[in-house]
Amino acid sequence: MAASTNLKSWIASANDRGTDFPLANLPYGVFTHANTTRIGVAIGDQILDLQSCAGEGLLASLPAAVVDACTATALNPLMALGAEFWSALRGRVTELLHESAGPEIQRSAAAMLVPQRDAMMRLPAYIGDYTDFYASIHHATRVGKLFRPDNPLLPNYKYAPIGYHGRASSIVVSGTEIRRPSGQTKPQQATEPTFGPSKSFDYELEAGIFIGPGNVMGESIPIAEAERHIFGLCLMNDWSARDVQSWEYQPLGPFLAKNFATSISPWIVSMEALAPYRVAMSPREEGDPVALAYLTSATADRDAIDLTLEVYLQSTQMREQKMQAERVSGGNLRDLYWSIRQLVTHHASNGCNLRAGDLLATGTISGPEEGSEGCLLEMKHRREPLRLPTGEVRAFLEDGDEVTFRAFAQCEGLPRIGFGVCSGLVAGS
Amino acid sequence: MAASTNLKSWIASANDRGTDFPLANLPYGVFTHANTTRIGVAIGDQILDLQSCAGEGLLASLPAAVVDACTATALNPLMALGAEFWSALRGRVTELLHESAGPEIQRSAAAMLVPQRDAMMRLPAYIGDYTDFYASIHHATRVGKLFRPDNPLLPNYKYAPIGYHGRASSIVVSGTEIRRPSGQTKPQQATEPTFGPSKSFDYELEAGIFIGPGNVMGESIPIAEAERHIFGLCLMNDWSARDVQSWEYQPLGPFLAKNFATSISPWIVSMEALAPYRVAMSPREEGDPVALAYLTSATADRDAIDLTLEVYLQSTQMREQKMQAERVSGGNLRDLYWSIRQLVTHHASNGCNLRAGDLLATGTISGPEEGSEGCLLEMKHRREPLRLPTGEVRAFLEDGDEVTFRAFAQCEGLPRIGFGVCSGLVAGS
Repeated sequence: MAASTNLKSWIASANDRGTDFPLANLPYGVFTHANTTRIGVAIGDQILDLQSCAGEGLLASLPAAVVDACTATALNPLMALGAEFWSALRGRVTELLHESAGPEIQRSAAAMLVPQRDAMMRLPAYIGDYTDFYASIHHATRVGKLFRPDNPLLPNYKYAPIGYHGRASSIVVSGTEIRRPSGQTKPQQATEPTFGPSKSFDYELEAGIFIGPGNVMGESIPIAEAERHIFGLCLMNDWSARDVQSWEYQPLGPFLAKNFATSISPWIVSMEALAPYRVAMSPREEGDPVALAYLTSATADRDAIDLTLEVYLQSTQMREQKMQAERVSGGNLRDLYWSIRQLVTHHASNGCNLRAGDLLATGTISGPEEGSEGCLLEMKHRREPLRLPTGEVRAFLEDGDEVTFRAFAQCEGLPRIGFGVCSGLVAGS
Repeated sequence: MAASTNLKSWIASANDRGTDFPLANLPYGVFTHANTTRIGVAIGDQILDLQSCAGEGLLASLPAAVVDACTATALNPLMALGAEFWSALRGRVTELLHESAGPEIQRSAAAMLVPQRDAMMRLPAYIGDYTDFYASIHHATRVGKLFRPDNPLLPNYKYAPIGYHGRASSIVVSGTEIRRPSGQTKPQQATEPTFGPSKSFDYELEAGIFIGPGNVMGESIPIAEAERHIFGLCLMNDWSARDVQSWEYQPLGPFLAKNFATSISPWIVSMEALAPYRVAMSPREEGDPVALAYLTSATADRDAIDLTLEVYLQSTQMREQKMQAERVSGGNLRDLYWSIRQLVTHHASNGCNLRAGDLLATGTISGPEEGSEGCLLEMKHRREPLRLPTGEVRAFLEDGDEVTFRAFAQCEGLPRIGFGVCSGLVAGS
């Protein structure tokens, strides 16, 4: 593993302590600039335009398939290639941006930079199917207590990674305003439901998993090979209308309570960038069942990623009073009950075919303690309601609230790498 | 409405009494022939190749957008255009194939025909999202009794069309072999689940609804406009592993029990072809609640389609003994609790954006009486188990069983129009 001193870039902003995008990160995204849409890599406050790099011959040392994939307007072709190809591209981009690059390379690559502030970020891939899991036992238990007080955690939870299919059409990139949805709701005391704007509008803090090479329909993905099928991770906000959800979700699961909008961060952090931050999953409770054989990993010490996730909230009042967004909760990806490789393997265990660009999500990431709730609904268990610096209280989101997720990994001897932001402002109904 | 005597074609097989594809039908599909994939219209035992028609100027009287759409390799561009364009194309195809067409037109169009037996049918559209509903109250009640004996029909059923998102990647065209899926199952007496091939493999008889022009995210679709967003209908088999389903489905709904494969018929019958067969929905029970305003249609006498659907089963033994497939059940689309326009309007009622080529499905179509069960699971309520002509008994599907769905509409003074077949053979695990 290269020490951080070897990971300096000739781009000054990439060496800033606070940047999410040092040379050790190099996440992929799709952006529009000067009326064209291209694939790029974030570096400091810049984007390295891979399409132009390909056009100018800066990627000539790479396999033709990689160069071709870099000229697409979505990451799907690159995702489909597989880890050796991703690694080759990452290696070359590192060469181009490393402080040891010769003056000619630096001059050429500098001409391929687009300031992030001048670019409009797009969805990084065409998402064929989107699946949302329920991998945090802390979330499942807290929410279960509210929906089913007598029966919070169902008997299948500790055996099967529970998930459901979500809506691909309404996945939007960070920064898109989210309209408060309308739907059928029935307060407990009412005899009939009514239709109108949701009064219990919530966020859900999640990580998204972009699939790389897919599997053939009818074939499964052994757990030892699961990560070969993962291109990288992003942040995700699975916006939820809780009042709609509680009325509609039985027996077929969440539907209109969720499918009106899902936000993702524009940058996908590769598994290679996350490799130094691999750890074991947080320990399960004593007495929890052993996973069935097809879900048992031989590399348990690396099943998780030590990734800190945070939720920030800024109300209209706060914006007007020039107050910064307030950190309202935070969790860690390693606290999930199921690892991301278990999610992939379980998904394909019946022969369901995953395709490059498909999005899997962890489900709300919550930790065991107060302050680590991944959604507002869970905060109902807090002793005190959530109070913003203005004195405003939040049970659920109000119009004008902006929700922003951040995430970062850090460890001794390596710079901190981050995910940028996944944010959305709640517009009226 | 043209009388059937005016709907004769110069293609003899289109005038056969038994054909599913008379001139009154003209369903759209996508086929491969001579190594190219094209859009076509079924007529008798032939396919009219629309790409070649466009190339040869036979569609020159139509708007350029229609001609362009006919040269695509999937129906999405045509679907996106809307009803006036579909109607113009249908009118022109009717002219080309009608017995009154002049000899020159007949000669030109004859050169555009491909025998159906020489073509390989494809999925008709790129399906961005697939949603499955639960619109048959007879199905919901019979299945509910098995999964929740005390609570078969949940309180939301008569207010909200219940649905969930399915898997788009594993939708396959009729004729594709379906591999028996493996999954986690837990028999009631077992203390832990095990992983292995499903022992309760079932079909579900459904109709698929292909979306035409979509709606903008954040906007809903008023019920009066719902049908403008429907391109046409097909048959669908929502293959289901019941033992996997009963273990996994709570609280987030069916997932791996369903997403390994879904079969659809290759031909999409247009709403214009179905127009003569419009009727009122079968009456609801007395005391059932009035639909909420956003789901109330002003044209209730035409909310349904009088479409008969049938299930045929042929086992390996039957095939070996040259026995024809046995009709094991049948239902009618008008027996649903929710109309297809209610499904569309409900789906978009929260601003969820539908896109051209999206597939909605009704859910299992069952009638009230014995013999009208849309899946094997429901037949558990029969006095006698399902017995095939060989004497074989079926609780669930065995390897080698071939399931075939058919559907047709007919009414006085018009020829019978059919959907072709949706079939699949169960391969081993």
